Amino acid sequence: MPTRYAQRMAKVQPSAIGELLALGADPSIISFGGGYPDATLFPAAQLDAVFHEIIQKPGGASMQYAPSNGLPRLRDQIAGLMTADGMSCTADDVLILQGSQQGLDFAARMLIDPGDVIITEDPTFLGALIAFEPSQPRYAVVPVDAEGMQTDRLEAILTANPRAKMIYTVPDFQNPTGVTLSLARRKQLIALANRYDLIVLEDTPYRHIRFTGENLPTLKSLDTEGRVIHLCSFSKVLVPGLRIGWAVASPDILACMGLLKVAADTQTSTLNMAAASLFLDRYDLAAHIATLRAAYSAKKEAMLDAIRQHLPQDITATDPEGGLFTWLTFSEGFDTTDFMRRVALPQARVAYVPGATFFPLTPRANHARLNFSSPSLDAIRTGIAALGKALYANH
Amino acid sequence: MPTRYAQRMAKVQPSAIGELLALGADPSIISFGGGYPDATLFPAAQLDAVFHEIIQKPGGASMQYAPSNGLPRLRDQIAGLMTADGMSCTADDVLILQGSQQGLDFAARMLIDPGDVIITEDPTFLGALIAFEPSQPRYAVVPVDAEGMQTDRLEAILTANPRAKMIYTVPDFQNPTGVTLSLARRKQLIALANRYDLIVLEDTPYRHIRFTGENLPTLKSLDTEGRVIHLCSFSKVLVPGLRIGWAVASPDILACMGLLKVAADTQTSTLNMAAASLFLDRYDLAAHIATLRAAYSAKKEAMLDAIRQHLPQDITATDPEGGLFTWLTFSEGFDTTDFMRRVALPQARVAYVPGATFFPLTPRANHARLNFSSPSLDAIRTGIAALGKALYANH
Repeated sequence: MPTRYAQRMAKVQPSAIGELLALGADPSIISFGGGYPDATLFPAAQLDAVFHEIIQKPGGASMQYAPSNGLPRLRDQIAGLMTADGMSCTADDVLILQGSQQGLDFAARMLIDPGDVIITEDPTFLGALIAFEPSQPRYAVVPVDAEGMQTDRLEAILTANPRAKMIYTVPDFQNPTGVTLSLARRKQLIALANRYDLIVLEDTPYRHIRFTGENLPTLKSLDTEGRVIHLCSFSKVLVPGLRIGWAVASPDILACMGLLKVAADTQTSTLNMAAASLFLDRYDLAAHIATLRAAYSAKKEAMLDAIRQHLPQDITATDPEGGLFTWLTFSEGFDTTDFMRRVALPQARVAYVPGATFFPLTPRANHARLNFSSPSLDAIRTGIAALGKALYANH
Repeated sequence: MPTRYAQRMAKVQPSAIGELLALGADPSIISFGGGYPDATLFPAAQLDAVFHEIIQKPGGASMQYAPSNGLPRLRDQIAGLMTADGMSCTADDVLILQGSQQGLDFAARMLIDPGDVIITEDPTFLGALIAFEPSQPRYAVVPVDAEGMQTDRLEAILTANPRAKMIYTVPDFQNPTGVTLSLARRKQLIALANRYDLIVLEDTPYRHIRFTGENLPTLKSLDTEGRVIHLCSFSKVLVPGLRIGWAVASPDILACMGLLKVAADTQTSTLNMAAASLFLDRYDLAAHIATLRAAYSAKKEAMLDAIRQHLPQDITATDPEGGLFTWLTFSEGFDTTDFMRRVALPQARVAYVPGATFFPLTPRANHARLNFSSPSLDAIRTGIAALGKALYANH
């Protein structure tokens, strides 16, 4: 039977490059695709200990249903982490989510009527576009340079898009480019959000993995009007398999997102919330993050060294101050999707994410996103060398 | 700032009885509200063992990201369970969900344009209405009697509602009434869904907790046209804290729900999927369910005995063949919400869920849903006696 789907499903389609990316999962291929943290650094012994303790605790509370907005103790602990990062808040200001991905879905469902406009960086996080699509938005895009979203071009875009409701940004070590929004631009973004009455969706999964320099203030910490929804997550700093993220937002917005949480899935896993909470009580998350920073920084350096050594000189790479990704720009006319299908996968045995997929409106073919957190140092050196060899051979 | 929410949020509102139900969480009150399984029966030692084994396994796969549609091994195991229940299927026909609640959300998002009609039992599961609301449906309702939804009244309702897209039903030990849809009515429901080109959303969280009699065929097993979405879950038969449910549906529908899964939260927790999968490998779920059946059956008998002994004779209770709930009908004009606020909570120190909240269109005040799985046998006897005393005193 041909099912009569709702109109919102029209643009909910499989990724055009899904098949290509699936080829990268072949274990004989060195993958710079994905956005996986390094599994060899997962704190397995500590997680084993906290799961044991919460499951054995009399009463079985860790296995039972829990409040839809999250375990109160965990919300309190997260409020402490957020306050330490310049966003003064309490447990009441925190909603636990099924990864911060769920916050992207909720923000769009809460704000976007079909045809309303979401402003994004250009390029932007593909997963956010996937989360937004069922709410039927249109997009307006702001170019990105070494200091992140070019906020000096934002006002003209807002003037041209009266139905703009929300600005979506990954201000720290952006996905896919790795660039960080400068302080001056953070202030300008907030000023424009205030003037044009917009919500700002601040997505910060990589924020705490900084290699050099000092953290810049979050947009939420610069927000005086309750316009910023701050999303963060344990996926990159603890383990993705817990699926625990959170939102910090003003009471009216958080209440609305809390109602969507009840509707969407009742609650995040009690076991996982209890485990994360006990981990924070028993162990030093900051020390664990320091280990990740050192390891990922070394991998980033190895990747950029290998790029300088092995890739043709006309290819540029961003040098991120943190996070998981660098962004390659090839010469105009070079098509990274075509090259991956024809050469990189079958000959070089290397995968990356072709850049075209990250542009909401007008794909540009001459970019690639490379992840350095997941592959080993050896794989980084071997893979980039193989990529360079293939590029020279097909130049 | 007054946030300009999307239109879909207009009906996404806090439950009118939320405050009343919150009072029932006072530990000095005996609660027959909620729908919690008995935490004293959770298989804690087994879950402790499986979490230990998956976390310690080299490679860290249980803590890493996993496929969005679920771990292949778990999907295969669930396909085996479903096949054994008369729904022949493979892993490809199974989508892992964040509890079956997420399947309710996805079904509505996939099918319902604003103003489309969902057919429900009257009364029906409140959580389903909460899941459906953001998709802006209208409802048409079918009365329920001792054999479940009165399918002989369904055709007239379908004729009167040309925008009907989906029939939502809890065929086994329905929430809130505890009644079970008879085989003849199951067949009639499927025949009408075929004739009127509707999707059937079959929600079966309690199906495997049957006290007496034989299981009836699922609607999915009677479906010859790929119209039935079968939802089930480990929440009631293993532990709710895992948040693992699943859908079995035709390939086109499952693909659509899989795209919504990517958008909504990327994936269910890898740790929890791996733990459930290893539990199924290492332990005997059927034996565990047999323990639950015996325990809940004894509690149901205790509750019905106490009702017969202590409650006024004009109050009737359903005698469910399984599940978690019985449904009380008081005389016309009696208001269970008012009685709970004025008498049951403050004087009898007993909580239930007032029935009015379960009716999508026209609340009826003279019902209450009582849960017997969560309270102890003692609490059941004490609580019903106290309720009876309060009812006689306020007659």
